[in-house]
Amino acid sequence: MTFRHKHLLGIEPLHPEEIGTVLDLADRYAEMNRRENKHGDALAGMTQVNMFFENSTRTQSSFELAGKRLGADVMSMSMQTSSVKKGETLIDTAVTLNAMHPDLLVVRHPHSGAVDLLSEKVNCAVLNAGDGRHEHPTQALLDALTIRRAKGRLHRLNIAICGDIAHSRVARSNILLLHKMENRVRLVGPPTLMPAGVADWGVEIYHDMREGLADCDVVMMLRLQRERMDGGFIPSEREYFHRFGLDAEKLGYARPDAIVMHPGPMNRGVEIDGLIADDLTRSVIREQVEMGVAVRMAAMDLLARNLRAGRAAAPVLA
Amino acid sequence: MTFRHKHLLGIEPLHPEEIGTVLDLADRYAEMNRRENKHGDALAGMTQVNMFFENSTRTQSSFELAGKRLGADVMSMSMQTSSVKKGETLIDTAVTLNAMHPDLLVVRHPHSGAVDLLSEKVNCAVLNAGDGRHEHPTQALLDALTIRRAKGRLHRLNIAICGDIAHSRVARSNILLLHKMENRVRLVGPPTLMPAGVADWGVEIYHDMREGLADCDVVMMLRLQRERMDGGFIPSEREYFHRFGLDAEKLGYARPDAIVMHPGPMNRGVEIDGLIADDLTRSVIREQVEMGVAVRMAAMDLLARNLRAGRAAAPVLA
Amino acid sequence: MTFRHKHLLGIEPLHPEEIGTVLDLADRYAEMNRRENKHGDALAGMTQVNMFFENSTRTQSSFELAGKRLGADVMSMSMQTSSVKKGETLIDTAVTLNAMHPDLLVVRHPHSGAVDLLSEKVNCAVLNAGDGRHEHPTQALLDALTIRRAKGRLHRLNIAICGDIAHSRVARSNILLLHKMENRVRLVGPPTLMPAGVADWGVEIYHDMREGLADCDVVMMLRLQRERMDGGFIPSEREYFHRFGLDAEKLGYARPDAIVMHPGPMNRGVEIDGLIADDLTRSVIREQVEMGVAVRMAAMDLLARNLRAGRAAAPVLA
Repeated sequence: MTFRHKHLLGIEPLHPEEIGTVLDLADRYAEMNRRENKHGDALAGMTQVNMFFENSTRTQSSFELAGKRLGADVMSMSMQTSSVKKGETLIDTAVTLNAMHPDLLVVRHPHSGAVDLLSEKVNCAVLNAGDGRHEHPTQALLDALTIRRAKGRLHRLNIAICGDIAHSRVARSNILLLHKMENRVRLVGPPTLMPAGVADWGVEIYHDMREGLADCDVVMMLRLQRERMDGGFIPSEREYFHRFGLDAEKLGYARPDAIVMHPGPMNRGVEIDGLIADDLTRSVIREQVEMGVAVRMAAMDLLARNLRAGRAAAPVLA
Repeated sequence: MTFRHKHLLGIEPLHPEEIGTVLDLADRYAEMNRRENKHGDALAGMTQVNMFFENSTRTQSSFELAGKRLGADVMSMSMQTSSVKKGETLIDTAVTLNAMHPDLLVVRHPHSGAVDLLSEKVNCAVLNAGDGRHEHPTQALLDALTIRRAKGRLHRLNIAICGDIAHSRVARSNILLLHKMENRVRLVGPPTLMPAGVADWGVEIYHDMREGLADCDVVMMLRLQRERMDGGFIPSEREYFHRFGLDAEKLGYARPDAIVMHPGPMNRGVEIDGLIADDLTRSVIREQVEMGVAVRMAAMDLLARNLRAGRAAAPVLA
Repeated sequence: MTFRHKHLLGIEPLHPEEIGTVLDLADRYAEMNRRENKHGDALAGMTQVNMFFENSTRTQSSFELAGKRLGADVMSMSMQTSSVKKGETLIDTAVTLNAMHPDLLVVRHPHSGAVDLLSEKVNCAVLNAGDGRHEHPTQALLDALTIRRAKGRLHRLNIAICGDIAHSRVARSNILLLHKMENRVRLVGPPTLMPAGVADWGVEIYHDMREGLADCDVVMMLRLQRERMDGGFIPSEREYFHRFGLDAEKLGYARPDAIVMHPGPMNRGVEIDGLIADDLTRSVIREQVEMGVAVRMAAMDLLARNLRAGRAAAPVLA
């Protein structure tokens, strides 16, 4: 089993084999989470701290449950109501927390790169739970696990990522992962919601859902991030749904066995028709959430092993 | 021991014998909570999630302590600062959480019926921690246990529920429970604070405290819920206390050994005189809080047993 | 080992030998916190409740980690969003919580004396996590431990406490402790930030940093508490830093081996130059945070022993 990292800051530094290691272990944890007794001891004696500088029900809950089920002492800090208000810098906050000897530090931050910066100031393993428009690696890993379980493989698939690419760290981490595993990725959405420089990402670009979904194995919808659109183009929901919302008619252009994904929380009737979201013959949205806990358990377990090994003086990569 | 339910959504579906089962077990947990070591393992390996869509110090703390003392992994989510803000529906939130495989889900919600609706969408046991003006079953159970311990029995008692009945789910659950156990229930309060349809509830109605309290064994005061009165009649505190606040003079009309109850938090000098609240020869208000933890431990323990039995394919009622 | 108290409300009632007892035990916990397995069982079976009526990242996190690492069931309540809003009194809140049988209650409150008052209403051990401008005993203890580890002793040192003394409970608890241990304490700051009655505190007063720091072993900077200055003199940051901010030039007047302390969170460029704060040859600010967890573990452990002994009917002082 290979996973040679001190932190999980993004998908970019991971080797395909390492991604496989995470997913294999997560498969086992998914099994455990369905059992009566879902409490283990992989992180027993360790301290996990969650620092969320942005609100998130889903991701924070998922990390919190993952840590508690693995037996860690878990502390979740709401950074909105904290010293941050008193003017302390991010680095001071990190250095302060580090002095309390956490073993695992889970961080979400609104600025791209903030989590990388923070990881350089601490001794513990850092997990990026989303930083600005940069990366959200556990989301990409849980999506990958969901795809692998639904399609039986994680390579040579046609995958369409649709909607608000510009504001999405989810899209970015997914593209990185899916390319590493040798899939074909297409982006589908209005030109105004494509990020600058997308032409260099090695993806096909479509501005029409029917063309973009043709022959796809996986249709990955994104949340319209209106809360991150400051001043720019904000489409009307009605018009957006008409052109880019996933409904039965548009989904008809994908393969008959194509699965539908969404990272949540959903805007029903905006980027996705509620009927499609709830159609369990196509939608794997619930399984994404389930795999989220399992993937985070796996990632924290692997980082904890490296932390122990590193403290025992065996070399690990930064 | 009989308790044949998957959820605890209200008092309405409970049989008198089942109520007795909960209270008997809660008596034992009350004993444990007074011991040095108050940590058990009835919920070991299980995950409890608290979702409070309304603030509550007392009830949320009580459930949280109950779960932790029984060895569950407990996660409390403040739903005010969550995805709810991002426009996610209650059902999506429930389905998302359900995918994380909680075993016990404790929910408070401002809308009557919301917790019932939610219970239909999840696989775990749901406990209603208060929904709108509908039910608050653990409050009624802790009140019942407090009465049974103070009076030595829970039947053939004269019980006056006084004050703001109209806005009170506590009153509603208590009336249901006390009737099931064959007590006589009277409601005492101004006509403007009586709910519509109260004439069909099988209770005696009084608008005068002295008449209403005559010969009572139990005087149950309610909090004046000014925060739920939108636009309607709002009494002045001074006038309200004069006519309906419990003081020594009015309490003099009840039986000499009548006990005084209040679900808290109290408005001292509004619905109750502070001297009465603090008179430990009459007031059992502190014991209500103590029994609250014990009753929630008992309820969660019983639901967890049924969950295990249900997963082992034995039939349980919905 | 001697520590004869039911509560930790302040430094004032502690004997020098008791302070030594806390620090010695904290030294051992500091060792444990650096180990792989940092989970013990000194508080196993016990319930710790944190009630913070003022926000605090650092102190609340420190107490929470301390309790979890010692195996307690820990519940942290944010009192801003609680029943306090519904008009419940502090005493009612305390009495309510007490009925849930906590063993350890950690309280921060904006009013001086509130924690003492509360301790009289409960059966459990109460730890003051800061009350108004009165005391903050665990801060003084962690500062003392940091000094003892850095200087090899905790007596006959020259210690300068600098800056906003008037609004600081940290200063007050530190002065009490440092005097008990026979150190010489000087206060340095503008006259407007000296508290009323300071002439009776048995300290030397300086209004010039260079004079005040001369020959000091320890330079303890305080946070400029602008959030507590209501209506009075508020210095400009630039002017304040020029006259009272600690920089290399001013520090040059202290002993060459003088250490620099700050309770955090820091206002860099206001009361302290960031370069000094980060100079690990002089600054022990990070170690203060580290010792904070250890000191809180030690204090809670000792109080828990007395609680057990007290319940077993051995006499302890109030």
